[in-house]
Amino acid sequence: MREIVVIGVGAGDPEQVTMQAVSALNRVDVFFVLDKGEVKQELVDLRAEILRRYAKDKDHRVVVGRDPERDRTAGAYVEAVGDWRRRRADVCADLIVSELGEDQVGAFLVWGDPALYDSTLAILDDILARGELSFEVEVIPGISSVSTLAARHRVGLNQVGRPVQITTGRRLAKGWPDDVDDVVVMLDAQTAFTEHLDQDADIYWGAYLGTPDEILISGPLREVAAEIEKVRAEARDRKGWIMDTYLLRRKTDQPPPAGLRPRPKE
Amino acid sequence: MREIVVIGVGAGDPEQVTMQAVSALNRVDVFFVLDKGEVKQELVDLRAEILRRYAKDKDHRVVVGRDPERDRTAGAYVEAVGDWRRRRADVCADLIVSELGEDQVGAFLVWGDPALYDSTLAILDDILARGELSFEVEVIPGISSVSTLAARHRVGLNQVGRPVQITTGRRLAKGWPDDVDDVVVMLDAQTAFTEHLDQDADIYWGAYLGTPDEILISGPLREVAAEIEKVRAEARDRKGWIMDTYLLRRKTDQPPPAGLRPRPKE
Repeated sequence: MREIVVIGVGAGDPEQVTMQAVSALNRVDVFFVLDKGEVKQELVDLRAEILRRYAKDKDHRVVVGRDPERDRTAGAYVEAVGDWRRRRADVCADLIVSELGEDQVGAFLVWGDPALYDSTLAILDDILARGELSFEVEVIPGISSVSTLAARHRVGLNQVGRPVQITTGRRLAKGWPDDVDDVVVMLDAQTAFTEHLDQDADIYWGAYLGTPDEILISGPLREVAAEIEKVRAEARDRKGWIMDTYLLRRKTDQPPPAGLRPRPKE
Repeated sequence: MREIVVIGVGAGDPEQVTMQAVSALNRVDVFFVLDKGEVKQELVDLRAEILRRYAKDKDHRVVVGRDPERDRTAGAYVEAVGDWRRRRADVCADLIVSELGEDQVGAFLVWGDPALYDSTLAILDDILARGELSFEVEVIPGISSVSTLAARHRVGLNQVGRPVQITTGRRLAKGWPDDVDDVVVMLDAQTAFTEHLDQDADIYWGAYLGTPDEILISGPLREVAAEIEKVRAEARDRKGWIMDTYLLRRKTDQPPPAGLRPRPKE
């Protein structure tokens, strides 16, 4: 029986890899990589560095597949993502059939945690649901960019006994979620926090978390929103891409404050 | 300047410790432990095992403080927690002053991730806010029980482009959160999922995650709720304590399904 291991490798610092991930990396015969055709050479290099550093006990191959283009102009986000996933599933199924022996172990490395805003598990599910191919799946959890954000700012994600919601920029742009004061935002290409300057909230923002290029800014949302927009645009221009996430914390009367004072800006 | 490192050590499997945590463990002079006076000997042993396995490069001491009792009969949860935190802060401040040299590194080990429903950061913040003691704080993120739950069930926490809310059993008992279909519940001593059998939802439940005693149950909420209640009560009786968490996933019409098919019950 073929086995596929989905390995969370942390937010961008090779030191965030767990012992469990290292063990898994050393069981793998074939690492599958989808080439996004984008210029994120640093992420390609980082992945290579993780393999070089930790996957030393066993011979392995790295097989690169062509990631299908996603229609980013489509209005219907969910359908566009669904279509893209099906085409990615086609590519992955072909790779598994053609490159992985019947008793071998294949792997996908996932930035952050495979459970948060990542499509790998859904793609494998699609493939299994077609019934033409069968394999075991194991998932190794990873340190997410959300955990990294909180750690770097030295804050908790939740206030005492209160909920935290993890959502997307697309949804935050439509409105602050009901009944939560603490909101973590991922996949925000549109700086949706600028829609909420009427809120008495703090923001804890981070980009390229865990990497040498990490940028952290925190403070009252109204006071630092413009600075974040500016720093973000400059960084994206400079590097050609950006990955960022943030926590919005609306002030409540509730004692005691969770987390430490914001770290000085860098 | 004293330094305090808050180290996330994963949900219960020593293999979930990250390389970064191992580096941090080996910089520590004094590990601070609050003795909860409870019979979770397995957690005490597990913490000792983590130190034995990874903290080998440097001499260190383990100093145990007496964790103050929390008033669990108080009606006002937040105030009771606030009071308990202040008394914990007293204990921790005393430990730091009396046990940690001016240029030494102290550490608190935190199960899971220090950012999620853990009071260590807030306690250190309380101590710093008093202004009588100063130290640097570094936080090492850890694999949370939430990430572990998702990995073991091989599901994502969110559906495509949708939010996920992390909340408490206490709050879930009062109602399903607005506008979210995916809800992760922690600190649920009252099996609040049983209040929502009217929902067309799946549950992914796990106890003692990452440990040899791990229990996983998943399926349609209405079909497995009673089984979870039974298994949970038996496990708690047998071991004297339980730590569990779960994901409730309300069905939507949205294609494609996120995550893999539920794992067979164990």
